[in-house]
Amino acid sequence: MTVSASSHTSLRVTRAGIDTYQQPIAYMHRDCEVCRSEGFVAMTRVRIQVGDRFLTATLNVVVNEQIALDEVALSEAAWNILEPDVDARATVRHPAPAASAGALRAKVFGARLDDAQYLTLVEDVVESRLSDLELAAFVSASAGERLDHGETTGLTRAMISVGQRLDWGEGTVLDKHCVGGLPGNRTTPIVVAIIAALGYLIPKTSSRAITSPAGTADTMEVMAPVSLDIPAMRRVVEREGGCIVWGGNVRLSPADDVLIRIQRPLDFDSDGQLVASVLSKKVAAGSTHVLIDMPVGPTAKVRSDSSADSLAARLRHTAEAVGLQLGIYRSDGTQPVGVGIGPALEARDVLKVLNNDADAPADLKERAIALAGALLELAPGSASGTGIQRARAVLHSRQALAKFLAICEAQGGFREPPQAALTADVAAPLEGRITAIDNRRLARIAKLAGAPTSPAAGLETALRVGNTVQHGQPLFTVHAQSRGELAYALEYARINQPFSISTEGA
Amino acid sequence: MTVSASSHTSLRVTRAGIDTYQQPIAYMHRDCEVCRSEGFVAMTRVRIQVGDRFLTATLNVVVNEQIALDEVALSEAAWNILEPDVDARATVRHPAPAASAGALRAKVFGARLDDAQYLTLVEDVVESRLSDLELAAFVSASAGERLDHGETTGLTRAMISVGQRLDWGEGTVLDKHCVGGLPGNRTTPIVVAIIAALGYLIPKTSSRAITSPAGTADTMEVMAPVSLDIPAMRRVVEREGGCIVWGGNVRLSPADDVLIRIQRPLDFDSDGQLVASVLSKKVAAGSTHVLIDMPVGPTAKVRSDSSADSLAARLRHTAEAVGLQLGIYRSDGTQPVGVGIGPALEARDVLKVLNNDADAPADLKERAIALAGALLELAPGSASGTGIQRARAVLHSRQALAKFLAICEAQGGFREPPQAALTADVAAPLEGRITAIDNRRLARIAKLAGAPTSPAAGLETALRVGNTVQHGQPLFTVHAQSRGELAYALEYARINQPFSISTEGA
Repeated sequence: MTVSASSHTSLRVTRAGIDTYQQPIAYMHRDCEVCRSEGFVAMTRVRIQVGDRFLTATLNVVVNEQIALDEVALSEAAWNILEPDVDARATVRHPAPAASAGALRAKVFGARLDDAQYLTLVEDVVESRLSDLELAAFVSASAGERLDHGETTGLTRAMISVGQRLDWGEGTVLDKHCVGGLPGNRTTPIVVAIIAALGYLIPKTSSRAITSPAGTADTMEVMAPVSLDIPAMRRVVEREGGCIVWGGNVRLSPADDVLIRIQRPLDFDSDGQLVASVLSKKVAAGSTHVLIDMPVGPTAKVRSDSSADSLAARLRHTAEAVGLQLGIYRSDGTQPVGVGIGPALEARDVLKVLNNDADAPADLKERAIALAGALLELAPGSASGTGIQRARAVLHSRQALAKFLAICEAQGGFREPPQAALTADVAAPLEGRITAIDNRRLARIAKLAGAPTSPAAGLETALRVGNTVQHGQPLFTVHAQSRGELAYALEYARINQPFSISTEGA
Repeated sequence: MTVSASSHTSLRVTRAGIDTYQQPIAYMHRDCEVCRSEGFVAMTRVRIQVGDRFLTATLNVVVNEQIALDEVALSEAAWNILEPDVDARATVRHPAPAASAGALRAKVFGARLDDAQYLTLVEDVVESRLSDLELAAFVSASAGERLDHGETTGLTRAMISVGQRLDWGEGTVLDKHCVGGLPGNRTTPIVVAIIAALGYLIPKTSSRAITSPAGTADTMEVMAPVSLDIPAMRRVVEREGGCIVWGGNVRLSPADDVLIRIQRPLDFDSDGQLVASVLSKKVAAGSTHVLIDMPVGPTAKVRSDSSADSLAARLRHTAEAVGLQLGIYRSDGTQPVGVGIGPALEARDVLKVLNNDADAPADLKERAIALAGALLELAPGSASGTGIQRARAVLHSRQALAKFLAICEAQGGFREPPQAALTADVAAPLEGRITAIDNRRLARIAKLAGAPTSPAAGLETALRVGNTVQHGQPLFTVHAQSRGELAYALEYARINQPFSISTEGA
């Protein structure tokens, strides 16, 4: 008899138009011949091949007439990976078992993995051969201090090896990274401008916000394009010595881009995965000397000095193993930095600092100078104790501003941050002294006002713990582009006041 | 100003027609006012309320015109939970954090949880307040022997308390359960018939196949309806003493129904979760005396005697804590049982055994008698050593057959198992002795032939390890309803021969 196995049956490829945030999903009809003959049911993992491209996706089964029997529809993530032509056809079949299944199981059961096992695992992560459930299992099995120093290095090396690696030739390449952001702590554009103005290379990649009102890439984007590819990034750095581009576009650590999707919602801190994430990107960017900004505070990512000690030791161990010179700068993580929270409002603070404006936020400025100074002293040949002076001088002379504007031009052109259509003040309900500021509530209000989707949205406040306020004095100003978003932010703020005010000793 | 917060904005509810296998998914347009004002993005967890019903779902964001701006579409699982009326409207907002988030985190970080923490966790599982990623984290954190005996009992008690519990009054209620099925090992209908024929209560719930060619519920369904609700199940048991119904419909352990969805694809054995799953359902069913069939073999779920010892100790500890009398019957787990694999083909074997047919599979018959005998001896007042005799007598007298047919009638009417339209033999490629049988390949061939979706599909083989075969003699017969499925099963079988044949000593 004739064998007509369905693995040879091709299906029309269509775009489902459904965004599942990087998770590749395929939609097929329940009565599709391939589903029936392959035994596919909802949530089956399927291998989809279009031309010479393929990926492993999770199947969702359509039970109504929105899809034809000879059709496979792709979620946005799957569509973007396969990039099918018009009239493209796909074959869909069972994937081979992931080569790392054994290593994943071993890690879940508490074993230590070696470098080769981490490499196999990370290759499967990048090729989407592991399901989201398996990725969640890997993240859980790595929680806390479950990876030892050697495993942390193994994971870091594996993440480096599956991505691209930029090469800037011989010489020093500087970089900085902040572990766990504070609202408004937008030092990166200032530090990059100072360092590049002093003639060093600093090819900086930054992230967009996932759960915060703004990431550095969002803030930078209101002043210049950030979605550069690697050749464009290289041209900017070769011309100006520095850049501030969106890391998600250059994909220097593609495994990290996948893992982050799982780590963020689960929010189980893993010191090992944190170190691998940060250091793999730095090595991939070609950096040689990296300063880690580590804010420490009860509501920051690093909550205590002992946690900071442990994380610092792990960072140093792996940095040495992969040949990075590392500096660690511990900073105050108890309250926001600068005045603005939200892409455009933070950009305004950055520009004021670079422009030496009288009303530039002093805390943001001093933090940026301190970080730039520490980074300068990390570089070979720097005299100890001179970094802060050099950083301050180049900022005060406006050489840093000129360099920043030149970087913006090189990235595609400087633009002024937008101004929100609507603003509203929230007044102090009583006279007194500010005893605490809830960073999470401030961030939530800025997000409800529309940040970062509306780049002009967010809030402004210059008040800090210890300041006294009068009854009726504005505590903060909400910026929004629509009345609905403004109202919603204000309603939340009314119920969830971010400032604790004490009448005693006022 | 007027507050028009979007939590007060209702959306039209529609049915997406997408099966995501019990995972509730909501589909909303990217530009929907609620998405924008609430800051919802793809994979955000959202709380959907329709009338007085609500659930927590995962958001998928639609970027084309398949959905309107004022619409929320529900996956099949979400639709079935909310059961919206025509013209129903929903409010969609951020869910409160799951109360068990802290306990989940603690377990992931290696802590021991107490009874109260397991109760909170299981309540959140049932109310779908934990995402699939969080459930995967819980499953991973419970892998192997990560739950101690006390935690196993705590999880079991919690799973009992969130479900219904059947009450059969005073007296003995028997039950059986097989840990990890073998292809064709369909003893349950026979054991239930024997036990009920002897006057005992045995309210049996069984599962459908997820990854196998047939579950007991699938096999029973070709002979009688199995989708009974609890009142209907109660009527059957009150009338006939026993039943064999689909557990997924009575939902005696709703937490287990959720966890299974995550456990199956991950396939990390967890002795603690296995014990909680089995025993919570038995307590919920009102059972007092339970026999556990534990096949042991290198390709069975329980692979060695030491694993069996450890699992048995855990089962006994928790059974005692929740007041169940437990017996454990270790059996051969090295090869299939009976002749048929697939719902209808297994049902034929069951009916032949009950009918005392000369060609009834002897291994299935003897296993059923042994299990029924052991279960009888577990019941109070039974003389030791008489169980097997009593079981064999009631089977040979056809009282068990009469009881089985009466149970089928009570469940809605007996029906003959269907016969497949097409069959094809697979012949031995050489003369020799069978040295091993790959149960997984046999199961895969039966599934490719269409089982259990096509109940008549599957395969038949009476050959066992040690049998000799002639060149060209049929090794097994594939049954299918369509030429495509038959061809596909045969193609797989050609490349993945399930029988190892040795020419030495043949």
